[in-house]
Amino acid sequence: MVGGGQGAFIGAVHRIAARIDDRYELVAGAFSSDPDRARASARDLHVAPDRAYESWLEMATREAERPDGVEVVAIVTPNHMHAEPAIAFLNAGIHVVCDKPLCHTLEAAQALERAVTASRALFALTHNYTGYPLVRQARGMVAEGAIGAPRVIQVEYPQDWLTMPLESSGQKQAAWRTDPARSGAGGSVGDIGTHAFNLAEFVTGLRVEALAADLTAFVPGRRLDDNAHMLLRFAGGTRGMLWCSQVAPGNENGLRLRVYGTRGGLEWAQEQPDILVHAPFGEAPRMLRRGGAGTTPAATHATRIPSGHPEGYLEAFAQLYRDFAEQVLAAQEGRTADPSCCLVPGIEEGMRGMRFIAAAVASSQADAAWMALA
Amino acid sequence: MVGGGQGAFIGAVHRIAARIDDRYELVAGAFSSDPDRARASARDLHVAPDRAYESWLEMATREAERPDGVEVVAIVTPNHMHAEPAIAFLNAGIHVVCDKPLCHTLEAAQALERAVTASRALFALTHNYTGYPLVRQARGMVAEGAIGAPRVIQVEYPQDWLTMPLESSGQKQAAWRTDPARSGAGGSVGDIGTHAFNLAEFVTGLRVEALAADLTAFVPGRRLDDNAHMLLRFAGGTRGMLWCSQVAPGNENGLRLRVYGTRGGLEWAQEQPDILVHAPFGEAPRMLRRGGAGTTPAATHATRIPSGHPEGYLEAFAQLYRDFAEQVLAAQEGRTADPSCCLVPGIEEGMRGMRFIAAAVASSQADAAWMALA
Amino acid sequence: MVGGGQGAFIGAVHRIAARIDDRYELVAGAFSSDPDRARASARDLHVAPDRAYESWLEMATREAERPDGVEVVAIVTPNHMHAEPAIAFLNAGIHVVCDKPLCHTLEAAQALERAVTASRALFALTHNYTGYPLVRQARGMVAEGAIGAPRVIQVEYPQDWLTMPLESSGQKQAAWRTDPARSGAGGSVGDIGTHAFNLAEFVTGLRVEALAADLTAFVPGRRLDDNAHMLLRFAGGTRGMLWCSQVAPGNENGLRLRVYGTRGGLEWAQEQPDILVHAPFGEAPRMLRRGGAGTTPAATHATRIPSGHPEGYLEAFAQLYRDFAEQVLAAQEGRTADPSCCLVPGIEEGMRGMRFIAAAVASSQADAAWMALA
Amino acid sequence: MVGGGQGAFIGAVHRIAARIDDRYELVAGAFSSDPDRARASARDLHVAPDRAYESWLEMATREAERPDGVEVVAIVTPNHMHAEPAIAFLNAGIHVVCDKPLCHTLEAAQALERAVTASRALFALTHNYTGYPLVRQARGMVAEGAIGAPRVIQVEYPQDWLTMPLESSGQKQAAWRTDPARSGAGGSVGDIGTHAFNLAEFVTGLRVEALAADLTAFVPGRRLDDNAHMLLRFAGGTRGMLWCSQVAPGNENGLRLRVYGTRGGLEWAQEQPDILVHAPFGEAPRMLRRGGAGTTPAATHATRIPSGHPEGYLEAFAQLYRDFAEQVLAAQEGRTADPSCCLVPGIEEGMRGMRFIAAAVASSQADAAWMALA
Repeated sequence: MVGGGQGAFIGAVHRIAARIDDRYELVAGAFSSDPDRARASARDLHVAPDRAYESWLEMATREAERPDGVEVVAIVTPNHMHAEPAIAFLNAGIHVVCDKPLCHTLEAAQALERAVTASRALFALTHNYTGYPLVRQARGMVAEGAIGAPRVIQVEYPQDWLTMPLESSGQKQAAWRTDPARSGAGGSVGDIGTHAFNLAEFVTGLRVEALAADLTAFVPGRRLDDNAHMLLRFAGGTRGMLWCSQVAPGNENGLRLRVYGTRGGLEWAQEQPDILVHAPFGEAPRMLRRGGAGTTPAATHATRIPSGHPEGYLEAFAQLYRDFAEQVLAAQEGRTADPSCCLVPGIEEGMRGMRFIAAAVASSQADAAWMALA
Repeated sequence: MVGGGQGAFIGAVHRIAARIDDRYELVAGAFSSDPDRARASARDLHVAPDRAYESWLEMATREAERPDGVEVVAIVTPNHMHAEPAIAFLNAGIHVVCDKPLCHTLEAAQALERAVTASRALFALTHNYTGYPLVRQARGMVAEGAIGAPRVIQVEYPQDWLTMPLESSGQKQAAWRTDPARSGAGGSVGDIGTHAFNLAEFVTGLRVEALAADLTAFVPGRRLDDNAHMLLRFAGGTRGMLWCSQVAPGNENGLRLRVYGTRGGLEWAQEQPDILVHAPFGEAPRMLRRGGAGTTPAATHATRIPSGHPEGYLEAFAQLYRDFAEQVLAAQEGRTADPSCCLVPGIEEGMRGMRFIAAAVASSQADAAWMALA
Repeated sequence: MVGGGQGAFIGAVHRIAARIDDRYELVAGAFSSDPDRARASARDLHVAPDRAYESWLEMATREAERPDGVEVVAIVTPNHMHAEPAIAFLNAGIHVVCDKPLCHTLEAAQALERAVTASRALFALTHNYTGYPLVRQARGMVAEGAIGAPRVIQVEYPQDWLTMPLESSGQKQAAWRTDPARSGAGGSVGDIGTHAFNLAEFVTGLRVEALAADLTAFVPGRRLDDNAHMLLRFAGGTRGMLWCSQVAPGNENGLRLRVYGTRGGLEWAQEQPDILVHAPFGEAPRMLRRGGAGTTPAATHATRIPSGHPEGYLEAFAQLYRDFAEQVLAAQEGRTADPSCCLVPGIEEGMRGMRFIAAAVASSQADAAWMALA
Repeated sequence: MVGGGQGAFIGAVHRIAARIDDRYELVAGAFSSDPDRARASARDLHVAPDRAYESWLEMATREAERPDGVEVVAIVTPNHMHAEPAIAFLNAGIHVVCDKPLCHTLEAAQALERAVTASRALFALTHNYTGYPLVRQARGMVAEGAIGAPRVIQVEYPQDWLTMPLESSGQKQAAWRTDPARSGAGGSVGDIGTHAFNLAEFVTGLRVEALAADLTAFVPGRRLDDNAHMLLRFAGGTRGMLWCSQVAPGNENGLRLRVYGTRGGLEWAQEQPDILVHAPFGEAPRMLRRGGAGTTPAATHATRIPSGHPEGYLEAFAQLYRDFAEQVLAAQEGRTADPSCCLVPGIEEGMRGMRFIAAAVASSQADAAWMALA
C-alpha cells in the first residue's frame, strides 16, 4: 500500500475491502511521506519494519527484487500522488489498484495510460460504486433491453460536508480536496462528479459526448468548485443531467442514478443500495432487492449474504478487490479471467474521468458552453 | 365556468376545489364550444338551462347584466382559450380564476396583463401546488432564514404518461397538450415546467435571471418537447437545475423541490405532500409534518384536518379558491384582505411563466445558450 | 346534522366529505346542546334560523313533517349521543349517517339495531378508512386469491396525541374520549381499535372469532385504556395481532394493515394511502398506486383524480357519502343500488365493533383470557 | 471453527465478520462431521491439514496442547451441536464465540452455563443485531432518558423464506431449522424470535417478566412453529408485543423495534440499519444517521466509515468479534476491558433466550396462558 497512514480515510477502506474476501494480505507499505508517521503506521498495521518503506519508489524497487515481493499494490494517496507511484509499480511489473480519480492532470494521466499499455501488470481504478450488486444488475438489465432504449439519464451526487469552510480548520481530508495542487482542476467535480459520471456510463453503456457545465465555489475563499450543474448529451441522442455538490445540507453521500427508456425506468440510490426500482412502462413498479426474486447472475456474483441482510459500501468496495484478484490469478496462470470478474474499472474509465473533469472545467470557464468529450 | 365540459379533467378538479370550503356555488357556465356537449354538461352539473351558455362571450355579457350574475368565473379551457375569455370577464367586472399557464403566446399574455391592470376585478392563476400547507411553510422558513442564504435549488417534475405517442390514440388531454396551436411553444415546459419554475420562485422568493435549456421531443412525430433539462441562475448568485419530463416511466406526478442554503436544507415532494424535511446543517434532519410540531401559521392557515390524516391535491387546489374568496369579499367590502390569503398566484406569476417558456424555447433553439428572463 | 357545532372536529370532516362530490346540501341541524352555540354554529354554516334546532328530537320531528325535510342526517356527536338520535331519525324515516363507533353500550347498540331493522330508512356507519381506493382494491385482491389463503393478519393503529394527560387541560376532544360516560367502556379500543378491527375484517372478509387483549391506561389518572395489545384468531385458522395506542410518540394516525397468505402479501398504511404493496411469493414486490397500473374497478370507482395527485382522508371519507347517496337514490327510485356503492359499513359492522370493544374489555379484565366474538 | 463447512451459511458470515477488523486468523477447524467434507472445507479455507480435525473433541484436545493453539473458537453448528463443543473448549481454556440460540434444550443450556462459570475462558453469543451502531445508540438513549420511561415496546421479525415447505426440497438450512431434534422446541421462535426478544431487552434494559404466546405451524406437515404472536409484560409495567414469522411473503429479514416512552419514541429497522428515528414528544421526528449529527460515542465505537456510506449486516456482526477480541486481550493482559467492548451478549443473554423459547412454547401449549420468565 502506498499512502493510507495514520489520519487517512480511504486507506482503511481499501484495507478492509481487500480483507473481506480473504484474497489479500498486507505485507509492505509506504504509508506516508513523513518517515515517523510511516513507521508508526506500519507498526499499527503489523507490517514488518524492513517492508515499511520511506518512499514509494524505494518500495517499488525493493519489492520487485524480493522473491516474495508484493503482487499487487494499492495506491491511496491524494490525487497528485497517483500517477508517479502507479507508473513505478507498473514498470516494476507489480499490479496496481489505484484510487480515483486517475490523477490530477491530463498530462500525468496520459503518462500513466502509456505505462499501463506498456506493462504486463494489470491496473484497476476503484470506482467502487460499480461493485454494488444492484448496480451490476442495472447494467445488465439496460443491456438486455429491460427498459428499452435509454432516453433520459439523471445522475446526482450531493453531500454536505463542505458546507462550511472546513479546509480552514486544518481538517486533512478537506484540505487536500480543496487544493488545486493536490486535487487537480476539479473540486466536487473531481472528487464525486467523476463517480456520478462513471456510474451513468457504467450502467447504461452509453458515452457522454458533450456537456455544458456550471461550476461554483460557494464557500468564500474556496479555490475549487463545491457544486456543479451539468447538461449531458450521450451518444445516440440520450440526454441527461448531472449534479454534484458538497454544500447541500442534509445529504451525506447521496449518489443516485435514474435511467428512463422507451419501455421502462430504473432507479438506484447508494444510501439504500439493496433496492433497485424497476418500472416497466404501464406496469406497477417493482422493488428488486439484492439476493431476492429477479436477481441476475451479475448481481449474485457480487453478493455475499442473503437478501434482507444489508450489504453496504465496504462489500461493494471489496467486490472490486475480489474480482481483481481473479484477474491477477488468471494472468499468473496464463488463462482468461472469468468474465464476471472483468467489470472492474481500469485505465479507460480513468481516462474518461479525466476528460470529464477537463471538459467540465473548460465548459464552466466558457460560461457553460458545450464541450465535447473525446 | 368556462370549459370543463364532459371529458375534461381539470374542470372537475376546479369544481371540487371550489366546493370543499363551501365558498362557491356553480350557477352558470359555457362548458364547451360544442353546443350539445355544453347543454349536456350543464345538465350533469345542475346548472339552469338559461345560464348554460353557448359561448364565453355571451356568458360574460349576460352574467354581467344579471343582478344575480356570477361574481367569479373559472377558466379551465386549453391554453389558447385562456386570454380572450379572461379579458372579456375582466372587462365585464367579473373576477377570474384562470388555469395555468397564463396562455399560449406572449402577445396574448400581454393583452391579458393590460386587462388585469385596467379592471377592478381580481385575477388568480391556479399554480395549485402553492396551496399545499408545507409549501407555504417552506416559503416562510426560507424567508425567515431557517436555511440561511439559498445557494442551490433543484427542482424537478417527471411524469410518464406521454412515454408512448398517446396523442395518436385520440386521447383528448394528450392531443391538445402536444399541439402547438393549442398549447403554445412549450410542451412539457409549458404544462409542467411552469409549475416547477413557479414552485422554485414561490418558495425561495428568488427570481430566475437566466436559464440554459435543452428541450427534446423524444417520441417520434411529437411536435412539442416532452422533456426539458435546464441550468438556472437566480438573482444573487443562487444556482439551480430544472428537469421536467413526460417520458420518465415510473413517475406519475413527481414534482419535487430541494433548496440548500448556507445553514440548512429543505426538501418537499408533491407525492408525499404532508412531509417537509428540514436539515439544519450539523443537526439530524427533521421530518416536519403538516399540522404537527413545528408547523407555522402559514401552514396552519392552509390546513383543514389534523396531522396524520392525509390532505392531498384537491385540498391544496381548494386553498387557492378559499383564499381568493376572501380577496373577493374584501374587495367587495372595501377592506384589505387578510394577508395570509394573499399568496395566490396572479398575473405577475403568469407573466413570469410565459417568459420562462419563451426563454426555454429560445435557449434550446440556440443550443442551450443562456437566455435572460426579463 | 346532529352535533358538529363550533369547536368540534369530526363534524367539519363530515361536512366537507358530503360536499366534495356535490350530492348533499346542508339545510338543517341540531349543532349543539347549548342553544347559543347551536345558533351561532348555524349562522356560520349558512343554515336558516328556522331549521337550526335546539334538540335532535325536535329536528327529527319537524324535518319529518316538512315537505322539503332532510333526506339524510349525519350524527357526529360523542359516542353516548349516537343511538338515541339515530333511532329517532330512523323512526321518522330519515336516512342516517352515523359516526363510529356505533355507540357507547351494547344495550344502546341493540336498540339501534332493532330500529335499523324496523325502519325503511338506510343506515351508514363512517368507518371512513374503507373509503380509500386501495383499501377497496386490497379487499378485492384478497377475495380473488391474489395472496392465496390468508394466514397472518397484522393490524395496528398508533397515535400519540394522548401521551400527556391532555384531558386535564380542558381539551374537548380528549375530555370526552377519555370519559367512560361519553365514550363507553373502551378508550383507545373504542376510538381507534374499532377502525383497525373493521379494516382487518373489511379487507380480508374474515371474521375474528376470539381475541385475547391486554389493555392499559398508561397516563396516571386516565379512566380508559390508552393502549391495547391483542392476539386475534380468525375463522378458518388465520391468526393475527392488533395494536392500538394513543401514547406512542411520533405516530400521528398510523393505521396500517398487513395480510400474508399462502401465495403472497399485501401491505397498506393510511398515512401513504395511495400505495399498496403487493408481494407475490417468489417475485419482487410491486408498488400498486391509486389510479396507476394494476388498479381494479373497485379502486377506480373510489378515485377522483389521476395517479400521482394525492388523494387523502377527506376524499376517502367522501366516498362513503357518495356511495350512500347512490343507495338512498336507488331506494327512492325503487331500484337496486349499483353494487360498487354497497361497501359502505352499516349496522352489522357497527354491531361487530361493539362486540369487539366488549370482548376486548372483558378479556383484559380476565388477564387477557380468550373471549369469543359472537 | 466448529461447523461452517461447505454448504453452510452462517459459518461464512462468522469468517468474514472475524476478518473485517483484522483481529482473527483462521488456523484450525472441525468443519464438518463428514470427514470428506471437513477435509475439502479446510482446503478451501487454507487451513493446514494437520489442523483440520474430524471432530470438535479432537480439536479441543489437540489445540489446547499446542503452544500455538487457537485462542478463540467459533461454534457455528446447528443448535443441537452448540453446548457439547462449547463445554469442551471452555474446559480446555479456549475462549468461545457461539452462534445463537444458545442450544436446543434447557438442560444442555444449564450444563453450558455451568461450564462458562467454571472456566476462565470467555464466552460470547452472536446476537449479532446488537452490533449495529444505532442499536447501541438506541440502548444508550433509552438509558439516558431520551424517551422517558418506556411504556410500550413493539418488536417484530418477519421473514418469508419458509412460506412453502422448503424443508421437503432437501434445502439444508430449512431442514435443520424445522427439525425439533436439531433446533429444539422452537421453530421461528428459536431461530428469529430469540433475536427479537434479545433486541428488545438489549435496547431497553428491561426484562420480560411474562408472556402469552400463540405459536402456529402454518405449512402443512411442518413440525415446528413458523409464526409466533406474543403479548409481553416487562418489569415495571411496560407492555409490548412480539411477532416473528417465516411465512410472511414480501419480508426478507424484517427485524424492527419500536419503543415508546413517556417523553418520546424510537424506531429502528434492520433493513435500513443506518437510520434511527427519534421522536421527542411534541417535536418533529429526527432522523439520526450512523456517523451523522447526534451520534453517541457508543455508536461511534461501532462505526467504521463515514455516514452516508452504508454499513450492513457483516459490519454489525464483525463488531461482536472486534469487541470480543479486546475482551480476550484484556483477559490475557490481566487488565479490565474497555467498557465500550463489553456489550457483547454472553451466557446470561443465552440463558434468557432459552427461557424465552421454553416459556413461549409452554404458553402456546396452554392456549396462550401467561408464562413467567424466571
